[in-house]
Amino acid sequence: MAHLLSTTCSVKISSSYRPCGQPLNQVRTALPTSFTIQTSKSPFKRLVFQGDRGGRSFVVRATAAPVRQEVSAQPGSGSNQSPNEPSKPQRVMIIGGDGYCGWATALHLSNRGYDVAIVDSLVRRLFDQQLGLDSLTPISSIHNRLRCWKATTGKTIDLYIGDICDFEFLSETFNSFEPDAVVHFGEQRSAPYSMIDRSRAVFTQKNNVIGTLNVLFAIKEFREQCHLVKLGTMGEYGTPNIDIEEGYITITHNGRTDTLPYPKQASSFYHLSKVHDSNNIAFTCKAWGIRATDLNQGVVYGVRTDETSMHEDLYNRFDYDGVFGTALNRFCVQAAVGHPLTVYGKGGQTRGYLDIRDTVQCVELAIANPAQPGEFRVFNQFTEQFSVNELAALVTKAGEKLGLDVQTISVPNPRVEAEEHYYNAKHTKLIELGLKPHLLSDSLLDSLLNFTVKYKDRVDRKQIMPNVSWRKIGVKPQTVPAN
Amino acid sequence: MAHLLSTTCSVKISSSYRPCGQPLNQVRTALPTSFTIQTSKSPFKRLVFQGDRGGRSFVVRATAAPVRQEVSAQPGSGSNQSPNEPSKPQRVMIIGGDGYCGWATALHLSNRGYDVAIVDSLVRRLFDQQLGLDSLTPISSIHNRLRCWKATTGKTIDLYIGDICDFEFLSETFNSFEPDAVVHFGEQRSAPYSMIDRSRAVFTQKNNVIGTLNVLFAIKEFREQCHLVKLGTMGEYGTPNIDIEEGYITITHNGRTDTLPYPKQASSFYHLSKVHDSNNIAFTCKAWGIRATDLNQGVVYGVRTDETSMHEDLYNRFDYDGVFGTALNRFCVQAAVGHPLTVYGKGGQTRGYLDIRDTVQCVELAIANPAQPGEFRVFNQFTEQFSVNELAALVTKAGEKLGLDVQTISVPNPRVEAEEHYYNAKHTKLIELGLKPHLLSDSLLDSLLNFTVKYKDRVDRKQIMPNVSWRKIGVKPQTVPAN
Repeated sequence: MAHLLSTTCSVKISSSYRPCGQPLNQVRTALPTSFTIQTSKSPFKRLVFQGDRGGRSFVVRATAAPVRQEVSAQPGSGSNQSPNEPSKPQRVMIIGGDGYCGWATALHLSNRGYDVAIVDSLVRRLFDQQLGLDSLTPISSIHNRLRCWKATTGKTIDLYIGDICDFEFLSETFNSFEPDAVVHFGEQRSAPYSMIDRSRAVFTQKNNVIGTLNVLFAIKEFREQCHLVKLGTMGEYGTPNIDIEEGYITITHNGRTDTLPYPKQASSFYHLSKVHDSNNIAFTCKAWGIRATDLNQGVVYGVRTDETSMHEDLYNRFDYDGVFGTALNRFCVQAAVGHPLTVYGKGGQTRGYLDIRDTVQCVELAIANPAQPGEFRVFNQFTEQFSVNELAALVTKAGEKLGLDVQTISVPNPRVEAEEHYYNAKHTKLIELGLKPHLLSDSLLDSLLNFTVKYKDRVDRKQIMPNVSWRKIGVKPQTVPAN
Repeated sequence: MAHLLSTTCSVKISSSYRPCGQPLNQVRTALPTSFTIQTSKSPFKRLVFQGDRGGRSFVVRATAAPVRQEVSAQPGSGSNQSPNEPSKPQRVMIIGGDGYCGWATALHLSNRGYDVAIVDSLVRRLFDQQLGLDSLTPISSIHNRLRCWKATTGKTIDLYIGDICDFEFLSETFNSFEPDAVVHFGEQRSAPYSMIDRSRAVFTQKNNVIGTLNVLFAIKEFREQCHLVKLGTMGEYGTPNIDIEEGYITITHNGRTDTLPYPKQASSFYHLSKVHDSNNIAFTCKAWGIRATDLNQGVVYGVRTDETSMHEDLYNRFDYDGVFGTALNRFCVQAAVGHPLTVYGKGGQTRGYLDIRDTVQCVELAIANPAQPGEFRVFNQFTEQFSVNELAALVTKAGEKLGLDVQTISVPNPRVEAEEHYYNAKHTKLIELGLKPHLLSDSLLDSLLNFTVKYKDRVDRKQIMPNVSWRKIGVKPQTVPAN
């Protein structure tokens, strides 16, 4: 599965590309035209993905030769950079740039003047197909997305479609795009997905660990000054009974003191894969002088950013199902369709949360202030802590304002986790770099609820309840029954 | 590569099986006869590996139906077990039972009355072929080894040849042998091997992590009461500036206290793979109730155990090369052939060490005193600490007694590690269970040196120097030049 999408793939896209603004449903009736994305075994040959119809050239390009953009804004232009300061990284490769966080980040950085390339196997879309799931929001193909971005803003985002577990493919993207920074979202990112069955557990760890190892080797071999910005997760820490620090903790023990990696207690094969990655990256920083920032992100909520709101072809995915959906987003969908909010167990599970607008802000701050060579820097990337019960109460209150009848039920917890626990995690380093948090407000919740109400006819209620059990995972491949 | 040896393999063995005692070199001229080991897709069908010549049946059997042995000694009979005590685990599966520690352990446990099965892909022997390396001691094939064991002691050890990354194969071994305990040595175990090139780094992590995941799933699915005894390494801890505890550390921080996994700082892709394993196992103990003991083993030295000394066909491997050789064993070989002892860098690197006779003793103690369901128990398995310089001095002194002229040189350190550091690691838990250490004595060193002198004509001096650099590892596959 790791090599599912390799160096060559064919893609069918609509032949009737509509100007941005044309309603999406008109596109669905269009006849397909075949385009081919071809990567070459020669590291400098072009990826061909260009079309021309009636003299109007397509906007989307996937090319192994770097595509320079004419941008007026300077990267990081909002940070008062003076002409004498060292230049900021210009070229940012976003692995997993078609996903929830990756897509929003790609557009944000492109909008801020960075040269951006998306590297993605698109396997996340395949997971939806295989499990019978779908985003609440209709999302365009990556090709339509990038065309629309060009048409809307005049900016080009390069596209490399392939699997980073395929080192030949990854080498080609590095030698072609020559990134100054790599933002690595390119992993299987769902804890429940990793707990469906043995094959998904193995896939998750193999895919995530080997993909990240390949990225590290590519940086060492081809772009040794490139800054790796790796998305980790607050779930790596688990729920210790002491304060959670940002990556490291100073311990005095038997009269001696050292600052050591913060102990990790991950609680799914997915979360464990992130711990493995963190350990591998830390080692390469020390042994090879890699510069890396590990962003231990909390639970992300929201769907709109300045950029994804520009056009419906730029809309982000919004997952509400039991596999990929996360707590606050799922609660809003449940409230919108009159389904009780499903609290797992006692609901005292407390985690860090952040608005997706802060995700993109944090990644930009990390890029604009890179780690030093050899430094393995860890930031806890969230803005507020909530328990599940607190979130349910907030959604209930916001729903009532909209006239919705919001109920809450406790369902048996499919996970193995403490349901009542101490939780106090530090998160000051990104603030110190300039993060201006979008805290969870009544108005944001109102807006999010209205958004889910708008799309409520697309909700598949069968997907809402949790159907993956941490304890019942077995060795037989699981499929989702069509019912 | 992980599936290199799959459910079916053909093996050629000598047609002129000699009685134990016949010199090994006479066998080399024998004509080969082909035997086939065939595992079936049906979980209960027999593995066929039996021969008959002239009415004398072969001793070695590889069968998917459990082979009960007629043993007189009770397992753990040396530990004063009374008839009223709960019965000790009887059936022990040793994954990686053809390797250095695994082979000695398999014989020891068989000798102590346990029913033993070896599961091994034999890939360690392939590594030697690929890298042009060889054991100092001539070692027999696994088939000759097991025949000799039967002929010498009357005891049978079952054999399953295959790759535990192949879950179908592993399932078959579990359903066939029905282990009460699994001792898991079945990993790529060399730090330098994991640092040769990208493909070996990836192989090491994939092989070790996925193999261990499969073992965990097999226990959960087929033998949930089975006790996993996993070989870890003291190298997982690195060299912190505080005392190293056994697996966990109690931390008081900002006025609160918790006992957490001891922070890990592994320093090769191999050592990292062991950290990944430890984290995965800890999670499954919590989530599924797996019972596991993690044996964080120090550097093992020595070659002879009571059992491997019984016959030269039972001799253990003895690695002295720059990839698989470890410090003390390598120094003895260097002294024997008049090669300077090669101290890496300053030589202040301090680690825990143990005699291989204590390795087998520790594993038996862990099996005889199993972890509780859900318990992830960590023992530091070593008996003494030495710096590299201290070892060199000991070997020099022992060599002089034998009339050898022993020199020591410092060579550039191929690794990335502290060469002068604090090191104090706890190791009391196995002592509390009854370990009687064989401490490194003058007589043991004399014996080890005499052993290496005996085989010095087999030494390939080109293999002695380190040729794998932690910093220079690249993405191109490395081969060893034939020179």
